[in-house]
Amino acid sequence: MTVPERPLRWGMVGGGAGSTIGDSHRRAARYDDRFELVAGVFATDATRSRAFAGDLLIAGDRRYGTWEEMAEREAKRDDGIEAVTICTPNDSHHAIASAFLDHGIDVICDKPLTTRTDDALDLVRRQRDTGLVFAVTYNYTGYVMVRHARDLLASGELGAVRLVQVEFASGWAATLLEAEGHRQASWRTDPTSAGASSVVADLGTHAQHLAEFVTGLRVQTVAAELSTLVRGREVDDNAHVMLRFPGDVRGLLWVTMAAPGQLHGLRLRVFAEHGGLEWAQEWPNELIVRPLEGPHRSIARGSPEMLPAAARASRMWAGHPEGFFGAFGTIYDDAWSAIVARHQGSDPGVAAPDLPTVDDGARGVLFVDTVVRSHRRDGGWVDVPADVDGVTPLEDP
Amino acid sequence: MTVPERPLRWGMVGGGAGSTIGDSHRRAARYDDRFELVAGVFATDATRSRAFAGDLLIAGDRRYGTWEEMAEREAKRDDGIEAVTICTPNDSHHAIASAFLDHGIDVICDKPLTTRTDDALDLVRRQRDTGLVFAVTYNYTGYVMVRHARDLLASGELGAVRLVQVEFASGWAATLLEAEGHRQASWRTDPTSAGASSVVADLGTHAQHLAEFVTGLRVQTVAAELSTLVRGREVDDNAHVMLRFPGDVRGLLWVTMAAPGQLHGLRLRVFAEHGGLEWAQEWPNELIVRPLEGPHRSIARGSPEMLPAAARASRMWAGHPEGFFGAFGTIYDDAWSAIVARHQGSDPGVAAPDLPTVDDGARGVLFVDTVVRSHRRDGGWVDVPADVDGVTPLEDP
Amino acid sequence: MTVPERPLRWGMVGGGAGSTIGDSHRRAARYDDRFELVAGVFATDATRSRAFAGDLLIAGDRRYGTWEEMAEREAKRDDGIEAVTICTPNDSHHAIASAFLDHGIDVICDKPLTTRTDDALDLVRRQRDTGLVFAVTYNYTGYVMVRHARDLLASGELGAVRLVQVEFASGWAATLLEAEGHRQASWRTDPTSAGASSVVADLGTHAQHLAEFVTGLRVQTVAAELSTLVRGREVDDNAHVMLRFPGDVRGLLWVTMAAPGQLHGLRLRVFAEHGGLEWAQEWPNELIVRPLEGPHRSIARGSPEMLPAAARASRMWAGHPEGFFGAFGTIYDDAWSAIVARHQGSDPGVAAPDLPTVDDGARGVLFVDTVVRSHRRDGGWVDVPADVDGVTPLEDP
Amino acid sequence: MTVPERPLRWGMVGGGAGSTIGDSHRRAARYDDRFELVAGVFATDATRSRAFAGDLLIAGDRRYGTWEEMAEREAKRDDGIEAVTICTPNDSHHAIASAFLDHGIDVICDKPLTTRTDDALDLVRRQRDTGLVFAVTYNYTGYVMVRHARDLLASGELGAVRLVQVEFASGWAATLLEAEGHRQASWRTDPTSAGASSVVADLGTHAQHLAEFVTGLRVQTVAAELSTLVRGREVDDNAHVMLRFPGDVRGLLWVTMAAPGQLHGLRLRVFAEHGGLEWAQEWPNELIVRPLEGPHRSIARGSPEMLPAAARASRMWAGHPEGFFGAFGTIYDDAWSAIVARHQGSDPGVAAPDLPTVDDGARGVLFVDTVVRSHRRDGGWVDVPADVDGVTPLEDP
Repeated sequence: MTVPERPLRWGMVGGGAGSTIGDSHRRAARYDDRFELVAGVFATDATRSRAFAGDLLIAGDRRYGTWEEMAEREAKRDDGIEAVTICTPNDSHHAIASAFLDHGIDVICDKPLTTRTDDALDLVRRQRDTGLVFAVTYNYTGYVMVRHARDLLASGELGAVRLVQVEFASGWAATLLEAEGHRQASWRTDPTSAGASSVVADLGTHAQHLAEFVTGLRVQTVAAELSTLVRGREVDDNAHVMLRFPGDVRGLLWVTMAAPGQLHGLRLRVFAEHGGLEWAQEWPNELIVRPLEGPHRSIARGSPEMLPAAARASRMWAGHPEGFFGAFGTIYDDAWSAIVARHQGSDPGVAAPDLPTVDDGARGVLFVDTVVRSHRRDGGWVDVPADVDGVTPLEDP
Repeated sequence: MTVPERPLRWGMVGGGAGSTIGDSHRRAARYDDRFELVAGVFATDATRSRAFAGDLLIAGDRRYGTWEEMAEREAKRDDGIEAVTICTPNDSHHAIASAFLDHGIDVICDKPLTTRTDDALDLVRRQRDTGLVFAVTYNYTGYVMVRHARDLLASGELGAVRLVQVEFASGWAATLLEAEGHRQASWRTDPTSAGASSVVADLGTHAQHLAEFVTGLRVQTVAAELSTLVRGREVDDNAHVMLRFPGDVRGLLWVTMAAPGQLHGLRLRVFAEHGGLEWAQEWPNELIVRPLEGPHRSIARGSPEMLPAAARASRMWAGHPEGFFGAFGTIYDDAWSAIVARHQGSDPGVAAPDLPTVDDGARGVLFVDTVVRSHRRDGGWVDVPADVDGVTPLEDP
Repeated sequence: MTVPERPLRWGMVGGGAGSTIGDSHRRAARYDDRFELVAGVFATDATRSRAFAGDLLIAGDRRYGTWEEMAEREAKRDDGIEAVTICTPNDSHHAIASAFLDHGIDVICDKPLTTRTDDALDLVRRQRDTGLVFAVTYNYTGYVMVRHARDLLASGELGAVRLVQVEFASGWAATLLEAEGHRQASWRTDPTSAGASSVVADLGTHAQHLAEFVTGLRVQTVAAELSTLVRGREVDDNAHVMLRFPGDVRGLLWVTMAAPGQLHGLRLRVFAEHGGLEWAQEWPNELIVRPLEGPHRSIARGSPEMLPAAARASRMWAGHPEGFFGAFGTIYDDAWSAIVARHQGSDPGVAAPDLPTVDDGARGVLFVDTVVRSHRRDGGWVDVPADVDGVTPLEDP
Repeated sequence: MTVPERPLRWGMVGGGAGSTIGDSHRRAARYDDRFELVAGVFATDATRSRAFAGDLLIAGDRRYGTWEEMAEREAKRDDGIEAVTICTPNDSHHAIASAFLDHGIDVICDKPLTTRTDDALDLVRRQRDTGLVFAVTYNYTGYVMVRHARDLLASGELGAVRLVQVEFASGWAATLLEAEGHRQASWRTDPTSAGASSVVADLGTHAQHLAEFVTGLRVQTVAAELSTLVRGREVDDNAHVMLRFPGDVRGLLWVTMAAPGQLHGLRLRVFAEHGGLEWAQEWPNELIVRPLEGPHRSIARGSPEMLPAAARASRMWAGHPEGFFGAFGTIYDDAWSAIVARHQGSDPGVAAPDLPTVDDGARGVLFVDTVVRSHRRDGGWVDVPADVDGVTPLEDP
């Protein structure tokens, strides 16, 4: 792959004033100086959108009022954007992503991909039809030690995986924030905008994707219970999910946004025949490996032990911590590799094998769908559809 | 309560040469110098039993060959034992405990109380009939910070409990030890001697009892899956159990003896309205409290923050760690208080309110029974019997 | 302060191909999108320098072969650089910085400021004469929790400081790397280029600056021993320094680059009347506070407890770790604030009170000088000059 | 060695009502059931002494009013004590120990051995003359992982030691407790009873002994500064000591009793050619080993990695923590081995090679003496006497 002479021209939909996630996308995009922000729409109100675009030093004629306008006009420019990031509320992803795909623009989209299963499946089909790059920002798999863990398991050194315990136990919504006008809490706890399960869509898909990414196994069947820890809340905010993977591998997934006192809480433990490993997002620069025999080990990001994919994603010596933006930046790097490969006629999937794609995004939506089905059957075991074909969307309850 | 002029005269059944658990009972019993070992039977082979009793400096005429002989002869002596500890294989507890109760001797028994539900219920009835002290050594609730956690929740400072996550993820049997002649592994993995679920009986009851002790809540309903992580093993060695408590409180219990690389792995996390707490047996001298607001706190055993019951169970300044034997010793202390109270005509339950009793032991057996029932129904929700009356014993599969 | 319409135009001297520190400067500079790299000289060899400038997408006419040329030509351009970063070997800082100051360009310079005391003092005088911004990248004081610690102590909540224990115990040069041709090790262990004490200059000044920054106290007197842990090495690689601060405050500073197995190892502990605090660079997102009474606390970066300066330097929610580049980026942010203030006629010191300046840099050089004097007097107590006036430079040994 | 048929008959001087250290000795002595308490004097007031002896269930005729009486009468009994523990204030150790040695009774004595150097040297001579066992309870070297660390270094696996950093930074006297009538604080902060340096005698000797025990190296030369952190205190409560060991090995020792917020704070770090190790008393069940290459390791007490001496001192499976009393108990076990060996005509030093003896105790006193000399010379380097012969006692200041 030839490294292009300039960063990719890049635009954003969403992530305006006060949006931490929007800010994170911008930091991630320039972490390795691969993307240059040249266009955007940042608010539903056109005036506010343009004002914020000005704050970001975007040229006046590329400060848009609507995403429809942005998609259409950027597609016509010679120097139009080569990629767009979508970080709007989840129920709008489908329409916006469709529009940019229709205009031939590669897409980077927040997760969960959509709030409805049929929308997710439709985006998969559109991506297949267009051949465009469609990245979904499961950003935690950008962490160096996550990639090291994946490759350590893949190396066979620890033998076959037997058990997967994953949790994303956050406390950000441990009180009835929605009653106090908290913006993010409000839409995430509104049954109509949050989708079938807010907490599984928002946090559970990260946990499911992380577990599958690291183990290389896919959840086959689930038995789930959704519950509401904060009294007065109208949606579930806690999920317990028992998992079965192929080959008699078992697992447990716990996600909540309402565990008082927790900060972030994403943690993965995998047990294989010859040892276990543990990684937690709050201390991301180490991977604990506990061999069946011999002392527990702490493998440091940046150390000579790094396997190749981890070494590539590490930017600094061991002992000098990297954080959230670095992991997020790695997803953007992967997206950049995929897009540049496509421009140069190569296979994006080969150029960026670790990039989470629309298929991963759709799988997350199917996982949410399946968890909800199991919950509605009082925790009975339900299969996760193996692929997107022939899936019957979840009905409203 | 008047403190008696001498330690209680005490005997043991089980825990002979090479038995770590037997050694632990003896260390626990003398930790606070409350019990003096004066009689015992330590092996099924009378010669080996008497030899080991000699090693323990027990007088010649009290080195017994069988527990039947010991119960009968000790009961007749003026200076006969005032308490007996039973730490034999689980399926023998019922017969031995019954014999000592019949002879009017207070009992301290390992958990699980029995391998069969009807045996457990029978022991409850016998204890009720005799009024003797019957302690069950759920030793982890003897840890100081466990008692502090219990009283911190009971104080209401953290509000009502919402969620309970407990795990006992050990790695002691992470390979097919039973194929190598490992003694403990052999009887624990033999379907006939291990009971309905070896791992739930052995480790799960500790986790269930710890969770109930700390929260003051009792598991009401479970949905469970048992599985076998070590290929070739004939019993389950991993259990995932979803829990419902009264008042819409939810929980998750995970126990395994087969997680490679794990050492002990007992850990409890409780989330209440105004904060969460976490305790792990491997670092028992601190309790992590994470308030809804403000920084996370590490409360040290022995510090001035100790609530009364914890302060009583702490024997050393903060910063000077206490360990496993100290916690175990606290259970013995409680048993001592109960026995002395009985001798003096007081209520043992008032004198030793934290002592785990035969009721707790039976509840553990019912918990195992219920988990197995749920598993046999493919994870369907099953109620744990609220008390021992009217329970139908589990049938063989 | 009015936020300017564009990032500052910025150039670099040093930090070329393969330089991790050069890469760190570039990441730091764009972390908050405050600087745009438009010119540079990156190697002593002009061809290699220009090639690397091309890799960085710098325009052809601003890919310089020497820093003399760069200073002169950039100063003449209407769109010339507004700041230059110097990250060349330490003994070249003085000449390069002088040249850019002479051309009216604000300077950002690596530490140690110089290898010779008189050079450091000369730079202080030149900065005073020109009134330009002269930042020195003591990057560790850019960490959020370092600033929180400083303000927590300044708030008086913990009372007066009594004791300061600081260490920077790295293992990067724990073998005789210089014998294997390791580039950085070679110049750092060459007595002629490393200055009077390599390890004190390189790591010790970070530790001294961190301790002084957090406590607001300045080291008054030192008693030191330099030693060489790696056999065969020609310079010291370990330093033990006893510290006295005004007001009968005591301290200890330990720095090494040769502690086998250590990764980074910068750690600060401060004890004040009512409690202690601890911070370590490898886990930078928390500050441990141990009050005289009550439980130990872990204060999380991004939490509501953040004091104002810390809150300003934090860019992400608690639980989502920030790392080395973020801290470094904060130094660049401060430099940006100072430079913009100067452009707008305000006082840079008011606009960026936390920015380490040439005075801090010179103080570090004086600290090195004083430590070496003490060592040469077999550890006798020697005063650190209170300011740069009247200082007699250290003679060669 | 033949294991005797009964525990050793044992008495105590000191450690009466409310004495935590007295209680610790008793728990340690019965931890492995090696000693039976049969005589004692527990207070200067004979009535209180006898009352407390009664609480301990000591027979009436062996509840003594003075240690002189106890030594004399026990020596005459056929069933007299075979060992005595002395845990009285430090300045009384010499007289009491001398008396028991004179009566042919083996001694176990708290550290520091004495408050005066000549007293320490006298005890060494008396032990040599009598050939009795004289143990000094440097209890921290009883920890399993301390012994493992020692043997790991001795094995040569990590190469030659280069650097030793030891600290015992406690906060127990971080306020002016002596002004509030705190008993222990009062005598420890009284210049007449505390000896030349209270904090070095009390905590510093532990740190010095631990460092020497683990490395097998002896401190050769020190440069020290004593200081007082708590304003109004009449003795020093903080010590910074630079250390030189033979073979160009360097070290640093920091001890304080006045670091606010600290609990215990004993921690040792040793760096050898091929890696470093770290142990802290507050988490005693693990030893961190950081090899020059490869991941950091946590070695667990009780794991199969245990080297022989550590394995012998470990009483429980890995993951089941042992604590302070266990380590202390190991010192008692060693004392028991030495005493039994002497009874059986064997060499106590061979039977109990790890037992700290009167020589170790005297060495500690010499260390205190040397630190104080250095401090009085404003931190000049002073040699620690290599042995007890020809030492000139420290004069009063």
